[in-house]
Amino acid sequence: MQLRAHRFVAAIMACTITSLSAFAQSMTPSREQMPEGSVAMETNINQHSYPRLMPDNSIIFRLRAPEAQKVQADICGVKYDMKRDDNGVWTGQTAPQVPGFHYYSLVVDGVSVNDPASETFYGCGRMMSAVDVPEKDLDYLTIKDIPHGKVSTLNYYSKVTGSWRTLCVYTPPTYDANSDKRYPVLYIQHGGGEDHRGWMQQGKTNIILDNLIAEGKAEEMIVVSANSNVNAGMGGYRWEGMQAFRAELVDNVIPFIDKTFRTVADREHRAMCGLSMGGGQTFYIGLRGLDVFSSVGIFSTGMFGGINGAAGTDLDKEVPGLLSDAASFNKKLEAFLITCGEQDPRIEHNKRVAAEMQSHGLKVKFESFPGDHEWQPWRKSLHSFAQMLFKAK
Amino acid sequence: MQLRAHRFVAAIMACTITSLSAFAQSMTPSREQMPEGSVAMETNINQHSYPRLMPDNSIIFRLRAPEAQKVQADICGVKYDMKRDDNGVWTGQTAPQVPGFHYYSLVVDGVSVNDPASETFYGCGRMMSAVDVPEKDLDYLTIKDIPHGKVSTLNYYSKVTGSWRTLCVYTPPTYDANSDKRYPVLYIQHGGGEDHRGWMQQGKTNIILDNLIAEGKAEEMIVVSANSNVNAGMGGYRWEGMQAFRAELVDNVIPFIDKTFRTVADREHRAMCGLSMGGGQTFYIGLRGLDVFSSVGIFSTGMFGGINGAAGTDLDKEVPGLLSDAASFNKKLEAFLITCGEQDPRIEHNKRVAAEMQSHGLKVKFESFPGDHEWQPWRKSLHSFAQMLFKAK
Repeated sequence: MQLRAHRFVAAIMACTITSLSAFAQSMTPSREQMPEGSVAMETNINQHSYPRLMPDNSIIFRLRAPEAQKVQADICGVKYDMKRDDNGVWTGQTAPQVPGFHYYSLVVDGVSVNDPASETFYGCGRMMSAVDVPEKDLDYLTIKDIPHGKVSTLNYYSKVTGSWRTLCVYTPPTYDANSDKRYPVLYIQHGGGEDHRGWMQQGKTNIILDNLIAEGKAEEMIVVSANSNVNAGMGGYRWEGMQAFRAELVDNVIPFIDKTFRTVADREHRAMCGLSMGGGQTFYIGLRGLDVFSSVGIFSTGMFGGINGAAGTDLDKEVPGLLSDAASFNKKLEAFLITCGEQDPRIEHNKRVAAEMQSHGLKVKFESFPGDHEWQPWRKSLHSFAQMLFKAK
Repeated sequence: MQLRAHRFVAAIMACTITSLSAFAQSMTPSREQMPEGSVAMETNINQHSYPRLMPDNSIIFRLRAPEAQKVQADICGVKYDMKRDDNGVWTGQTAPQVPGFHYYSLVVDGVSVNDPASETFYGCGRMMSAVDVPEKDLDYLTIKDIPHGKVSTLNYYSKVTGSWRTLCVYTPPTYDANSDKRYPVLYIQHGGGEDHRGWMQQGKTNIILDNLIAEGKAEEMIVVSANSNVNAGMGGYRWEGMQAFRAELVDNVIPFIDKTFRTVADREHRAMCGLSMGGGQTFYIGLRGLDVFSSVGIFSTGMFGGINGAAGTDLDKEVPGLLSDAASFNKKLEAFLITCGEQDPRIEHNKRVAAEMQSHGLKVKFESFPGDHEWQPWRKSLHSFAQMLFKAK
């Protein structure tokens, strides 16, 4: 047994940094009784017992920080004080959380930091800890024993940034086996403070598409998630501010994808959607680019208002003819969907804009889902939008 | 301009958590003069100016933490005190660092945390910040304008753990275009406290292979990186402790790969290598499994000694006949490589073991590279090992 213990130390020492305490700090001894009915979060790093989901959807966080003066858990805009025990381990329990994916931080003496027990996700402009509270009776976010597609990470050279950049691509289950088949492509955009990884990791795009395809509810399609952070400050939500990312997506990403994958390289087999900031990009680049895309999905965007001070948008000016010549747009659009979370302050503005479009005869569908400005409504938006795509034969 | 500013706020608010200060804390105002000759680290999150590499390979770290009492940077086993300015921003400069990839933490009032300005990597049993100090005259870790392979992430069901698990697969540049061609496979294992992402992210496997293949120095091959954390405590470095991971790799992962990819599914076209703990796994599973693998690479393993208290290994007992019947092993082994970093305390033991094997007539090559127990020697080990593989026609 002594040999075994020594070898375990050797294994851990693959890291030369001295952080054994970090490794161990929320690995609960097996003798400890866990709260009844509680489970470790799916987003925990290997073997960590905390953070822990309680039956009422409250979450218990833990951090070992013997020298800290104050530790809080900061989740969904609320800070919860954590309490220190005699060993310097801080524990805190939140109010019940709504189902879905929530970024969180632990606040140690005023500094927002990651929880060492959590996987990290790029959100809020940095790598963030997160928990994913399962939603009862929603089974399409679960991996099932069905054919699975693949998520690939690729580098391409961007003439916009003058550098190698990274994007993610989902290819559907039959892609590798059917070497003659060509596939339509959905270009899907993340929100502000996120990047190309968002839809594949937080969004569970591969799981949603695998399940839809297995059920025969969606066509097999490639899904491409590019990084829209092409210029500092992001250029704002106007057509002029969109030029850099339009060039990135339309002149760099799409030709790279059409060259690298077996796509059907025409507008009928290309769609675009995005969430929040990505919804604004989709409004401009998608609706002003119907020679490139045939379907458009705008999820939870703030560009129509709902964020403190954000002005509305003159739809017919920003996308010329969108209202005054709705018939032309209807002819070109196979699917046009606007969605928003029902607790998202942006919802009234998205509703209003959809109604305004409809009153001018534009064929746009509006859908809402329970939830604030978070991933659960966005996952549901993709689940809905993907079923509308590429149906025309 | 007011509209533009408002819309920028809307973009950032895709995160409902209130961490604007975290987003901004090491984004240096453009008017600030940067230290002469310094560059932002490649591993920084979008647009962050710090951490910053100085011409002498020292690194400057920064953190905004107005309420903290003490902040340090902890890199390569040394802690550097950081100094607070009047705005609560802490700055510290390290001694010159050796080239390569280094995990690091910032220590805020005694708690080791991630730097919000850094990308994160799974190492030391948690998501870690890291810097990657470029090595002069070493160009095979750089993306070039040559054909690129792809790194895919896939889920598979493991009968060992009774759960869905994740692995990473590199497919070479021609894989998608040559739909009839079948490829050999290298199974490559991470170290303790790391997982399947290590070789693809920290290790730059795709870049190393792309460059080798473009130069005609290595055969086109698939590289599979599985997660060996199949049981709590990892089972130690003995054959008995290896059974769970052997079953995972040989009975679960390999059949899944052979079913999912166009492999040549025989021992002649299968190799295994690994670093540190993964080197120990390769020693047992590879050398005891020459019906499955034809080449074996053991990088920087601690299982032969060199870590405080770790005993040596009775080679001929642990792999029956390895010394006493070296000729049989020579017949089956196409390539057998042992490597170690020259500043790694494990090197003398690896040298000794290689010499002992050679003295018994076993055909094993020993190579060393400058560096401690870190990724730079492991990247170089892969670069060397890959060139030895699948040459027999």
